[in-house]
Amino acid sequence: MGPGPMDIHPRVYQALTSPVIGHLDPSYLEAIDRVGVLLQETFQTANKVTNATPGTGTSGMEACVANLLEPGDKALICVHGYFGDRIRQMAERQDAEVTVLEGAWGKPTDPEAVAQALSTGEFKVVGLIHAETSTGVLQPLSDISKLARDHGAMILLDTVTSLGGVELKVDEWGIDVAYSCSQKCIGAPPGMAPVTFSDRAMRSVENRKHAVRSWYLDIGLLNKYWGSERVYHHTSSSTMNYALLEALELIDEEGLDERFERHLKNHRALVVGIEGMGLEMLVEPEFRLPTLNTVLIPDGVDDATLRGFLLQEYNLEIGGGLGALKGKVWRVGLMGYSSLSENVIFFLSALDRALAKQGHRSDIEVGLTAAAEVLNG
Amino acid sequence: MGPGPMDIHPRVYQALTSPVIGHLDPSYLEAIDRVGVLLQETFQTANKVTNATPGTGTSGMEACVANLLEPGDKALICVHGYFGDRIRQMAERQDAEVTVLEGAWGKPTDPEAVAQALSTGEFKVVGLIHAETSTGVLQPLSDISKLARDHGAMILLDTVTSLGGVELKVDEWGIDVAYSCSQKCIGAPPGMAPVTFSDRAMRSVENRKHAVRSWYLDIGLLNKYWGSERVYHHTSSSTMNYALLEALELIDEEGLDERFERHLKNHRALVVGIEGMGLEMLVEPEFRLPTLNTVLIPDGVDDATLRGFLLQEYNLEIGGGLGALKGKVWRVGLMGYSSLSENVIFFLSALDRALAKQGHRSDIEVGLTAAAEVLNG
Repeated sequence: MGPGPMDIHPRVYQALTSPVIGHLDPSYLEAIDRVGVLLQETFQTANKVTNATPGTGTSGMEACVANLLEPGDKALICVHGYFGDRIRQMAERQDAEVTVLEGAWGKPTDPEAVAQALSTGEFKVVGLIHAETSTGVLQPLSDISKLARDHGAMILLDTVTSLGGVELKVDEWGIDVAYSCSQKCIGAPPGMAPVTFSDRAMRSVENRKHAVRSWYLDIGLLNKYWGSERVYHHTSSSTMNYALLEALELIDEEGLDERFERHLKNHRALVVGIEGMGLEMLVEPEFRLPTLNTVLIPDGVDDATLRGFLLQEYNLEIGGGLGALKGKVWRVGLMGYSSLSENVIFFLSALDRALAKQGHRSDIEVGLTAAAEVLNG
Repeated sequence: MGPGPMDIHPRVYQALTSPVIGHLDPSYLEAIDRVGVLLQETFQTANKVTNATPGTGTSGMEACVANLLEPGDKALICVHGYFGDRIRQMAERQDAEVTVLEGAWGKPTDPEAVAQALSTGEFKVVGLIHAETSTGVLQPLSDISKLARDHGAMILLDTVTSLGGVELKVDEWGIDVAYSCSQKCIGAPPGMAPVTFSDRAMRSVENRKHAVRSWYLDIGLLNKYWGSERVYHHTSSSTMNYALLEALELIDEEGLDERFERHLKNHRALVVGIEGMGLEMLVEPEFRLPTLNTVLIPDGVDDATLRGFLLQEYNLEIGGGLGALKGKVWRVGLMGYSSLSENVIFFLSALDRALAKQGHRSDIEVGLTAAAEVLNG
């Protein structure tokens, strides 16, 4: 129950052991096509260039950044956590002119600050994080997306911790490029990165003055393999793709709305449980990310000792804080197959025991009762 | 029995379904360390920076090229097939000054031509292919490696189709950087790329003027995760790594020399079988690659029809020619777990049937007898 990877469904394990077949085998190409169709559904987009890059979520981030930006391009990167800063680093390696809009860790980016920043120049790309895994903040998008459109800039969106777990409407919200990972709300093992590029983004890539610096993640070359041309590019891993495909089929069977509802309910149960116990969440209610919950560490409780106890005594992994939040929060993931009511109850009880071990008393009965009310409601 | 991926061992399938665990779990970090140790054995190197990049073989190629070369660096790239040309393309995307030494497809690079090319400037890197998957050529290395050392250049070597199947001595031969893939002679599914960087190569990376253009494949960042610092970089796939680890344990158990001997014997049996049938190999005997065999297509035989027949009638996949060799050769892989005596016999017999279907008669009895003699010898 950390920030990922999550547990995976038995059907996904089974798909992993499909016999390894060639990257140009006709039946395998059908599977790649199906991955594309199901990812379009999950991203809620009609973008033709929608599939998964052959690497972890970070490869998806690099594919988006390196294809959209070339030397001298102006990019506005909104940073209010660890992963926004990673986009900035990648954009700088493309020799883009990067303007950073710094926000407080634990709060979303403010649309007014974006409007102000956009007024200072002609930006090609605005990069931001939909669901910041380091802080548990869910970024509202409609205002910022409209501002970027009015400005003529493209939106590049990190959906690593939201795709398949939280409402995400790429087309309706006017997102140009988005990337995610396979091992969080999607529920497959790590190793693949879903990406989607709008027609506008693809035109921008086709009109580049310089070749994309990454040959491996050049979206034009990847798309010649994913698309109807089937030009050999890399030896696509059938192992990883069949697992991803099965995880996407499970999402299709559950239904996106039902899936979002499940994630939301378990999140709400966890929050009332935490608050019932007398603990506090880091993020204000309206910006809380249902898939990744940041709980403030109470005064006098040792972070590493507590997480070590959970791992040793209960085989339960939760995440510590990153960067500015190190030692200040715990990060509790409820994503994909692991977003289960029993995990909520288990976590609250185990946390109570771990706190008691350090002499910190919590109102576990109040917490469990509140959580159970939400789960049974 | 194409150019890859190969069939994989049941133990490797089993390893694939190890429970997915976090990239910083202590037991997983031990597995990553063990991958490094076993790859050192397989590369025959003491290089500390030896592990596997999170992507297919092409990610390993890009990691090597993008870390060693920066804008303005002079690189000599030896191209005598499809994959040498891919190195060239990647090097040009780093804005390196690339000199191409073109060789004939089906022959190795000539050391005298390398000496001549090196005399025209100060090259930082010489890039070449140990085992060219598109032609079936095994490149002798000692002469070229010595030339590069005397010149002060580093050798960047593609070992995609040789690592774990053919003699490869990184340290003894003075190779500075090498990369491979997981799905050929190693015998794991596609999706990981073994790489090794010498101390000299790492010093060169540390002294770069510009940051490596790929954040995802920055060897300095990767090594902070692989090494003792354990700094989070990407969500390493335990699925892929446990499969790779099991494949490497199998190599360790078999022994490198025994493994090379097995590959060589099956290759020799295939060659005498092919020649006994009255067909010819593309490559001269002394430069033939044991793991990937290129058979000349006889006049009057249709390539696609024959490969389609093998796939449909015998569920047997072999590769067609790439680039300049399209329609001229078949590529028959005998690598890793798939390098088996029964595969040699099966392929020869199936090929005879497929040729007969097109009215082409071969001396299959002579071929099989010759192959069996080698296999039983």
